[in-house]
Amino acid sequence: MIRVDISKAEAIAAVPRMTDGERFAVRQKLLAHPRSEWVGLPSVYGAEYVARLETAAARLRAQCGAVVIVGAGGSSLGARTLIDALAEDGAPEAYYCGDNLSGAYLEKLLVRLRGKDFGVVVSSKSGGTLETLAALRVLYAELRARYGASAPARVLCVTGDEPSALKRFADEYSCETFDIPANVGGRYSALTPAGLLPAAVFGVNIAEVLRGAASEAEPELSEAAFRYAEARNALYKAGFGTEIFASFEPCAERLGAWWRQLFGESEGKDGQGIFPATAAFTGDLHSMGQYIQDGRRDLFETVLRFSDARSALRVPASEFDDGLSPVALRRFAELNALAEEAVLDAHAAGGVPVIRITAAEPDGRGFGAAVYFFELACAYSCLSRGIDPFDQPGVEAYKIRIKQRLDI
Amino acid sequence: MIRVDISKAEAIAAVPRMTDGERFAVRQKLLAHPRSEWVGLPSVYGAEYVARLETAAARLRAQCGAVVIVGAGGSSLGARTLIDALAEDGAPEAYYCGDNLSGAYLEKLLVRLRGKDFGVVVSSKSGGTLETLAALRVLYAELRARYGASAPARVLCVTGDEPSALKRFADEYSCETFDIPANVGGRYSALTPAGLLPAAVFGVNIAEVLRGAASEAEPELSEAAFRYAEARNALYKAGFGTEIFASFEPCAERLGAWWRQLFGESEGKDGQGIFPATAAFTGDLHSMGQYIQDGRRDLFETVLRFSDARSALRVPASEFDDGLSPVALRRFAELNALAEEAVLDAHAAGGVPVIRITAAEPDGRGFGAAVYFFELACAYSCLSRGIDPFDQPGVEAYKIRIKQRLDI
Repeated sequence: MIRVDISKAEAIAAVPRMTDGERFAVRQKLLAHPRSEWVGLPSVYGAEYVARLETAAARLRAQCGAVVIVGAGGSSLGARTLIDALAEDGAPEAYYCGDNLSGAYLEKLLVRLRGKDFGVVVSSKSGGTLETLAALRVLYAELRARYGASAPARVLCVTGDEPSALKRFADEYSCETFDIPANVGGRYSALTPAGLLPAAVFGVNIAEVLRGAASEAEPELSEAAFRYAEARNALYKAGFGTEIFASFEPCAERLGAWWRQLFGESEGKDGQGIFPATAAFTGDLHSMGQYIQDGRRDLFETVLRFSDARSALRVPASEFDDGLSPVALRRFAELNALAEEAVLDAHAAGGVPVIRITAAEPDGRGFGAAVYFFELACAYSCLSRGIDPFDQPGVEAYKIRIKQRLDI
Repeated sequence: MIRVDISKAEAIAAVPRMTDGERFAVRQKLLAHPRSEWVGLPSVYGAEYVARLETAAARLRAQCGAVVIVGAGGSSLGARTLIDALAEDGAPEAYYCGDNLSGAYLEKLLVRLRGKDFGVVVSSKSGGTLETLAALRVLYAELRARYGASAPARVLCVTGDEPSALKRFADEYSCETFDIPANVGGRYSALTPAGLLPAAVFGVNIAEVLRGAASEAEPELSEAAFRYAEARNALYKAGFGTEIFASFEPCAERLGAWWRQLFGESEGKDGQGIFPATAAFTGDLHSMGQYIQDGRRDLFETVLRFSDARSALRVPASEFDDGLSPVALRRFAELNALAEEAVLDAHAAGGVPVIRITAAEPDGRGFGAAVYFFELACAYSCLSRGIDPFDQPGVEAYKIRIKQRLDI
């Protein structure tokens, strides 16, 4: 269950609740939108499809000491979120590329792959992402040089169903390929093969991830998502224009990068939108703590926590006095929860509204639920402000200019 | 040489130049400040001191397949910047902790260290950082269990000269220890042992880093730093309240995290200050590109580039048509530079002022120069607005509350 606590926001700005009728209308707008297919997906993917993903993933993993995830944006951040948080011990080493044009970066990657059997999962919704295709050329040349005719068996493809360069690549070399449904946008594709297939390669229990998302497709989740949407919209209206997503569990740091695309790309339009930023606590308190406490008062925080952080690790005893004897032998999980209370109290006291989102455990179910919750909340946030959550008209400006410069 | 190009900012907002007299006064204020010792440090550390750092680093490296850097904020971000960008091939694996209280994170770290000989570099200016001391307890218990009486030889300490818990630890176990000068604040300590010692462990040529910084201690650098400070202050005054630090070279991504602390912690005071955010291009164009192009028009960008990105890697030929034939056999470095021009043109056309900082090469000299340049520019930025660049009064609010809750 996802819970939303806005008490530390309401103390600073009123958060009016939409009427049931308003909420119903927003929900209807979402379901009527041609690009809302992701809403039903977690329940649509059945055991058979999951088994197909897992079989392909296991086959690749069995051949590889390292696997390179090639993709950008929605074709990378969802996968990386799940892998960073949930990869099993003993999984292959994970490397990422296809989201930049740096030759130095790719050269270093090739050095790191030396002496390691490797494979590739390449993902692009459009099938035409420049950086992804360029990186694929480099990696496929390396695979061919090393493995000859068996190179294609080391490449899994994820792409949309339309004709595209990546589709042609997959056909040309008969690579196993998985579809991103045509009506699911990149930033809503974490729970499609774009996120699930790479995650499965690293031993993530993707059936649990889907179960976590599907189990939440209920009135309670919708209630939580609306409350989060209402709070952030009210704060934005009250002049809080920057939202910092944070967690005190480092396993959620990459989820922040995914969250940033989800909300930034959905809302940042027509000169409007909450600016999305991220932090990892307590670490970033040592860098951003001063600003959050004392800088411009147009920030609010959204903090993701897990009700059971699971770890039983305790602060060890020490032979000498380092000032920590009062916490010796206590669980880190307990201390971390206390520190979180203390920090959020301090921020709220400093005028920073805090929204707290609580998921159950930081496992497959918890992350599946969190991802689905944020997707739903983002759609509600946008639709209740009259914004289309599924387009991104501004990205053409730079893409067109790059194509002109590169003559492609 | 560091160069600053503000033409894509001036086109959107005027950037008045301070008079020579005003600049002189700011420079004098900086040099008269009791905490400005870092200004001279790159020239002060001599060959003998560098040799001492390198000897200790080599001794640790020789024993270790993995080295854990334990520290937070200024005692971690500078080190990590240099290691991420410049670690040599074949260096030990790098792990980081001491900047969170997550038991799950530390447990995972212990799992990853299994079967690997490891060592520790622990760093804390105050010597009393809670998360750092707690993580040190965990790691030292593991070292003792594995290596018994020789455990202390696997720990290097970096701390201030005042009595502290970390100092007592170092004394108790006779660990080799290096000083952070008393008058150098954490966020200005990247070019002290806090950054240099861990970097040396991973094979970074720290003499080159210092040379890069010292070679820049010249009128040209001061000119560039003032121009950057003037531009960002003028933009802030004109209503551009959020600055995004970005680079098209992934090796500079971690420098962004360091930059964020430097500027955010120095300027975010009294309800004022530019909000510092970071991005890694082209990757984050796939997440934040829409917002930057089309969201709230109070953003500006500071983009770090390297005049020689060095890599000779070319886009390989391909047997089939993926649409990239016009760029086949061309250098990635060239394509990346063209993409950068295209993207920054698009952003400026969309109303986002862009400041471009150019360093020479992404090597030790280039990073040393960039670090020193940003430190100087930050001090100038603050002092010309009447802000103390070296205090952080707001961080006590959360620290006091944590201590109360944890009873320490």
